[in-house]
Amino acid sequence: MSESSFLAACAGKSAAHIPVWYMRQAGRCLPEYRVLKEHYDILTLARTPELATRVTLMPVHRFGVDAAILFADIMLPLIGMGVDLDIVESVGPVIADPIRNAKSVEKIRSLDPADFEYLRKTIVMIRTELAGKLPLIGFSGAPFTLASYLIEGKPSRNFIKTKQLMYGDRDVWNKLMEKLTDAVIEYLQLQLDAGVDAIQLFDSWVGCLSKEDYVEYVLPYTRRLFTAVSKRGIPRIHFGTNTAAFLEEFASVDCEVVGVDWRLPLEDAWERIGAGKAIQGNLDPVMLLGDFDIVKKKVDDIFSHLPRKQGFVFNLGHGVLPDTPYANLIKLTEYVHGK
Amino acid sequence: MSESSFLAACAGKSAAHIPVWYMRQAGRCLPEYRVLKEHYDILTLARTPELATRVTLMPVHRFGVDAAILFADIMLPLIGMGVDLDIVESVGPVIADPIRNAKSVEKIRSLDPADFEYLRKTIVMIRTELAGKLPLIGFSGAPFTLASYLIEGKPSRNFIKTKQLMYGDRDVWNKLMEKLTDAVIEYLQLQLDAGVDAIQLFDSWVGCLSKEDYVEYVLPYTRRLFTAVSKRGIPRIHFGTNTAAFLEEFASVDCEVVGVDWRLPLEDAWERIGAGKAIQGNLDPVMLLGDFDIVKKKVDDIFSHLPRKQGFVFNLGHGVLPDTPYANLIKLTEYVHGK
Repeated sequence: MSESSFLAACAGKSAAHIPVWYMRQAGRCLPEYRVLKEHYDILTLARTPELATRVTLMPVHRFGVDAAILFADIMLPLIGMGVDLDIVESVGPVIADPIRNAKSVEKIRSLDPADFEYLRKTIVMIRTELAGKLPLIGFSGAPFTLASYLIEGKPSRNFIKTKQLMYGDRDVWNKLMEKLTDAVIEYLQLQLDAGVDAIQLFDSWVGCLSKEDYVEYVLPYTRRLFTAVSKRGIPRIHFGTNTAAFLEEFASVDCEVVGVDWRLPLEDAWERIGAGKAIQGNLDPVMLLGDFDIVKKKVDDIFSHLPRKQGFVFNLGHGVLPDTPYANLIKLTEYVHGK
Repeated sequence: MSESSFLAACAGKSAAHIPVWYMRQAGRCLPEYRVLKEHYDILTLARTPELATRVTLMPVHRFGVDAAILFADIMLPLIGMGVDLDIVESVGPVIADPIRNAKSVEKIRSLDPADFEYLRKTIVMIRTELAGKLPLIGFSGAPFTLASYLIEGKPSRNFIKTKQLMYGDRDVWNKLMEKLTDAVIEYLQLQLDAGVDAIQLFDSWVGCLSKEDYVEYVLPYTRRLFTAVSKRGIPRIHFGTNTAAFLEEFASVDCEVVGVDWRLPLEDAWERIGAGKAIQGNLDPVMLLGDFDIVKKKVDDIFSHLPRKQGFVFNLGHGVLPDTPYANLIKLTEYVHGK
């Protein structure tokens, strides 16, 4: 693993080539995944070690990426906390009993690592398959993003209910965020214990907040979380979309890599993050739905403004879209490797 | 009108008090509006001068705001361009035949001011009622935001189809943006001719783009548009949400006022816009769903960081949410006026 270009870049060091992986690289864009999905629902796939291992490795074989990412659903820690939820096809996670008040927060139990034996097994199995040739990234949703699902009850556009609770009942908000932070720490710790080589925290929806509210209602929890999951040699990636209003604060947690979306030019984002940290991003995933020539132009553009290659992990600005022609991801990996 | 605090602030001058108005101030938060909506659909309300006048004036009477804004639907110019659409309750605008290619762009006709006689009459009627005591703001959706509705066919979260067309067929994109820019110019010009005292361009969804793409695919059109609707003494407001990644560029058009959402602190946004322009914003509308004490604290916070009062128009960061208790808007107006 000492030769992993991904781990080198996360540590801000030179690598043989720019490392590439894609958020949601294992998923609907792959025909072999779609075949599996005809027989199993997503939670079964994620909670059956043999299946989760197979899905995790699919993009490794197909795309030639420089890291595998654990196939798991962002909702898994919540299931471990006793939340009754379902992943509804073409809707997303739907919570049976959304969080509304102190009572509903109390009902959420703390996360017991013993319930995640399947995840431990999956990680061990994947690492055996990878045989030290590629690193495995573990991950979790961030407390705010998990809270937003719990409160909205389903995917949201404006996060109105989340903010209403946040502004309206500070005490309930704090209790919920405390519980989620503790749970995410446990959840990432068990992945670290099982042997993942890096971890990423997805705060996908935090960009709906103002800078002041991010600092007041979210950052203290994320800060505590990152400090708690520190493990020698294991890079921690903090990913969010729409973070242009508070990127300095977002990047200020104890992490090695900051993941950004396409909105800010990569060089501007890196300047704001600080040269001491690595950066991951940031092609708009929509570009991959179209002609590869346009993708190439955009990648050229990213590289032409790049202040340095050390510490750069190439990725998209958000997850691979289900309708992406997978051939574009093969070409993209090759093209970035040639840079 | 020479004493209008709103017009003074737009011109960067001192006013008797900080002017206040609210985007979507005439709408579902008002019981008297909801009564009307039981009898008329939104397009009938918007296209019947007596009714549109009545609705425009409702918030003026209720809230004590410093400006009226024409009650109209963002889709009106598109109807004038021959687009078949419907405003579906609790969904939004739905386009019968979304734009997909050159042929569908060709079918869109240019806007004929003669089709907007109802709008001219409405503006004259409102101004008669206002009797020079308050200014009337005219408005339009911006070319990008209108294009996004036309292409997506319905309200969207990720604007995937819009970007696909933008990246995938530059020629069709340019033709569509040209047509929309021409139409919006005509549409705002007829409002200016009818006597509105200010205009606002809503580029509500442009924040889904990267800075480079904003500059390449949108800004040239908005720039041309603002220059074309210049009229002595009539301030032009450029409003967008989620513009933190490219605020300097967004503010660089020939306008007097820039409207911002809550994501950036107002003082940071103003610094990036430049002291030569007025600023409008930026309370998160979600705050108004809750207790007024929390609203007060946030307003205090905005004012405590304000570099100067001249050139500040108080508003929300986006439209009033339908479930807002209107009493909060009355209190908010009073509270800001007391600052």
